[in-house]
Amino acid sequence: MSARVLSGKELAATIRSQITEQAAVLRAAGTTPRLAVVTATDDASSAWYVSSLARAAGNVGISCDVVDLGADADIDTIRTELGKLSAQETVHGVILQTPLPPGATLADLATGIDPTKDVDGANPLSLGRLASGLPAYAPATAEAVLALLDHHGIDLAGQHVAVVGRSAVVGKPVAHLLLNRNATVTICHSRTRHLAAITRAADVLVAAIGKPKMITAEYLRPGAIAVDVGTNPTEDGGLVGDIDPDTARTQAAGVTPVPGGVGPVTTALLLAHTVQAAAH
Amino acid sequence: MSARVLSGKELAATIRSQITEQAAVLRAAGTTPRLAVVTATDDASSAWYVSSLARAAGNVGISCDVVDLGADADIDTIRTELGKLSAQETVHGVILQTPLPPGATLADLATGIDPTKDVDGANPLSLGRLASGLPAYAPATAEAVLALLDHHGIDLAGQHVAVVGRSAVVGKPVAHLLLNRNATVTICHSRTRHLAAITRAADVLVAAIGKPKMITAEYLRPGAIAVDVGTNPTEDGGLVGDIDPDTARTQAAGVTPVPGGVGPVTTALLLAHTVQAAAH
Repeated sequence: MSARVLSGKELAATIRSQITEQAAVLRAAGTTPRLAVVTATDDASSAWYVSSLARAAGNVGISCDVVDLGADADIDTIRTELGKLSAQETVHGVILQTPLPPGATLADLATGIDPTKDVDGANPLSLGRLASGLPAYAPATAEAVLALLDHHGIDLAGQHVAVVGRSAVVGKPVAHLLLNRNATVTICHSRTRHLAAITRAADVLVAAIGKPKMITAEYLRPGAIAVDVGTNPTEDGGLVGDIDPDTARTQAAGVTPVPGGVGPVTTALLLAHTVQAAAH
Repeated sequence: MSARVLSGKELAATIRSQITEQAAVLRAAGTTPRLAVVTATDDASSAWYVSSLARAAGNVGISCDVVDLGADADIDTIRTELGKLSAQETVHGVILQTPLPPGATLADLATGIDPTKDVDGANPLSLGRLASGLPAYAPATAEAVLALLDHHGIDLAGQHVAVVGRSAVVGKPVAHLLLNRNATVTICHSRTRHLAAITRAADVLVAAIGKPKMITAEYLRPGAIAVDVGTNPTEDGGLVGDIDPDTARTQAAGVTPVPGGVGPVTTALLLAHTVQAAAH
């Protein structure tokens, strides 16, 4: 058996073309959608991601300000900057990029991002509202997982989904989004015993672990759908996911590729949230 | 095999005696811990619960104000009252009792409870903080599940726990508390297919469904621990849980009773949170 490749490129292109139109309408009415990205790191892959995000924003007609506070920025400086950007009327979306300086945590600092501008769902209030069924921006990565499954016609109601990874930016919000769709959800993590036995019981596996190619065929039920949220840099400057595509494809019915799967949809949704925030 | 009865009475008594001492210290320093309970229902079991909570508060030296807005209170009246109580310096804990009038939802209205007074963890911000690993009051029922398991020496790290029920007041927060303890968590609900097969794979089952005696032996792995969060009123004025104790006890290693299990611990923890809030 050879699995379908569940690409995210077509969906991302569709979303981008929609927001290009919406952004044009907003600009014609005098509002240029504007995203501010705060960074406090000299991590190379973060810098690469931020510059590609800024370029993607420009391509759809969104302004993107990168506020680089430097890798030795202290917590108060970051907090003050997030508060200032949240208060600026011309800024519609605010993102705090990770990694952060030692001692700083995203959840704590993101409490300072105005929930109406929290386009990457990093403020714990956004996660709580999501889990409580109230309107909120979901973390773009978590929403991208659902959007990609929808795009490929994979119904979630009543399905058993194993989410491997319990972070507040991917694993937990994806679990809440899946519950909202009536999936049964198992959240696994580094301390899970008998991981393969647990994930093999699932119809859908979502890998958000951060370990290159960890998920092989033995973690998958025959005919399962495997969604790869991993973006692990390789030595030659490429990316690999958390799923080993060569073995996974012998067992699964569908696997999302890395790159070209969840990633482009995530970027497109982040920009869509920014346009949505600008329209309010 | 006959299961251990995992009573909550001894733990509740221990917590009550600790908070009685703490409340006395606070009163001696001029602060009487004070809990405000807002109700907007003529539901009989809610009235019974509120009066027993007020009595329990009085017994440990906490003032309890019941603000009854009536079953036809409109949403704005409830919202205004929660805001007023949140702003009152002499009030340390604020609870909004359910059920609520048609159209009103707990999560939405609880956004108006000051998080530092949200002693039953109803504000979505409290749930989001909990899920993000930040300090917050957990819903007392969810915390009682963990406290009762701890009290009976049941280790959770690496265990597979099935939570049946996905409400924002029990199922979801209990899942986050379990994840914080390194359990693997499966969240099941009314739309879960093959429920018994899924729960039989778990070491611990937490039932928070609201269906009398739904969980029978066939839902339990031999030697499992079964925690009953259900409080379903019976025709003769008693209570039954979501677990059928007669059959469950033939299969499980331990079952929490109803009444006398999670319930008394919940009340004690709600009062403990109020004393904690008063001490701040």
